[in-house]
Amino acid sequence: MRIGIIGTGTVGQTLGSKLVALGHDVTLGSRSKGNAAATDWAERSGPGGRAGTFAEAAEFGELVIVATGGTVAPAAVELAGAENLAGKVVLDLSNPLVFSPTGELTLDPVNTDSVGEQLQRALPGSRVVKALNTVTVTVMVDPDRVPGEHQLFVAGEDAGAKAQVTALLGEFGWPAERVLDLGGIDAARGMEMLMPFWMRLMRHYGHADFNYSIRAAN
Amino acid sequence: MRIGIIGTGTVGQTLGSKLVALGHDVTLGSRSKGNAAATDWAERSGPGGRAGTFAEAAEFGELVIVATGGTVAPAAVELAGAENLAGKVVLDLSNPLVFSPTGELTLDPVNTDSVGEQLQRALPGSRVVKALNTVTVTVMVDPDRVPGEHQLFVAGEDAGAKAQVTALLGEFGWPAERVLDLGGIDAARGMEMLMPFWMRLMRHYGHADFNYSIRAAN
Repeated sequence: MRIGIIGTGTVGQTLGSKLVALGHDVTLGSRSKGNAAATDWAERSGPGGRAGTFAEAAEFGELVIVATGGTVAPAAVELAGAENLAGKVVLDLSNPLVFSPTGELTLDPVNTDSVGEQLQRALPGSRVVKALNTVTVTVMVDPDRVPGEHQLFVAGEDAGAKAQVTALLGEFGWPAERVLDLGGIDAARGMEMLMPFWMRLMRHYGHADFNYSIRAAN
Repeated sequence: MRIGIIGTGTVGQTLGSKLVALGHDVTLGSRSKGNAAATDWAERSGPGGRAGTFAEAAEFGELVIVATGGTVAPAAVELAGAENLAGKVVLDLSNPLVFSPTGELTLDPVNTDSVGEQLQRALPGSRVVKALNTVTVTVMVDPDRVPGEHQLFVAGEDAGAKAQVTALLGEFGWPAERVLDLGGIDAARGMEMLMPFWMRLMRHYGHADFNYSIRAAN
């Protein structure tokens, strides 16, 4: 499949490399043309990987992944162009983290809105799915780093889009029975609001190789 | 142990009954004297259970549990009286849920503050511990309703107070190794911000007999 990735940071590069390894064609998109992180990544990635702008990545992808920070995701999507994303599944895995000068973590948006909802409003012709924002990037593409039957979550308005994302997660190593559907895109609020708890767990364990396993009575 | 409970709703009554069954002496405190919920509960509870005001419950308890809704917890604690709570462990298990007329759930406070922190600020002479707000009340006092090695979390400034709460959780059926210490009372933010996610899980499962099991690499 042709996949566009908006964002050239660790998350974008790690997902891009995994997707290329799985046989997909990937364009890693940067804000400005000729971004060194993107061109270096493309060179390392062989024929499956290309570098481009946000707009080129969006146009290239049959499915497009937003892999920027959450607070800048709406601006990145605007640069990518709603017309380039129309009719497509847009996978949002961002968290809107804001670190204060003293290191205090807050979220923006929070509580009454979420990045997932912001992107769906900005892209009414696209099918936004929130997923993967609840684990660190190395776990996203290698769930076996964490032992046990831990889970991922998807939220979005379109069942077909969620099924397509769930299939992609399956390629990453997440069986469909470990992907819980939490409902419409407004469920992204709860998924993003896990982040302050997640940061405390990271401090507790001293690393980020952990994940949620929801245990439930029948 | 003498335990005061501030709040006569389902959470307060269920915890009170469990504590009486475990052999503790409990005063269930209500906003106004002679509250029917509290006096009925005390009558059902036998010699271990008494009814009183918020202030009487606070004065009675060696350990005091705040079991009101989160949005009213600071006012309840003010009525209980900081002087009646001085030097004591105050266990806060509330969530600051606000439901809009359309049923939309938000939290207040959120993101930059939490009920746990509000109570610790209001009670500088007490040792506030946040715990138990992450599960439904029936699971609080009967963890085996949910299968597996699921967990609770504690947050607070005082290690001794957290140890005392962890011991009480042990009486409820939670072994100490399933109680994760998330740090200072500001970790209450992340614990309270789990609630929107928790509500989506409840919708997903169709019941509230579920809990988090954090899986982590060694």
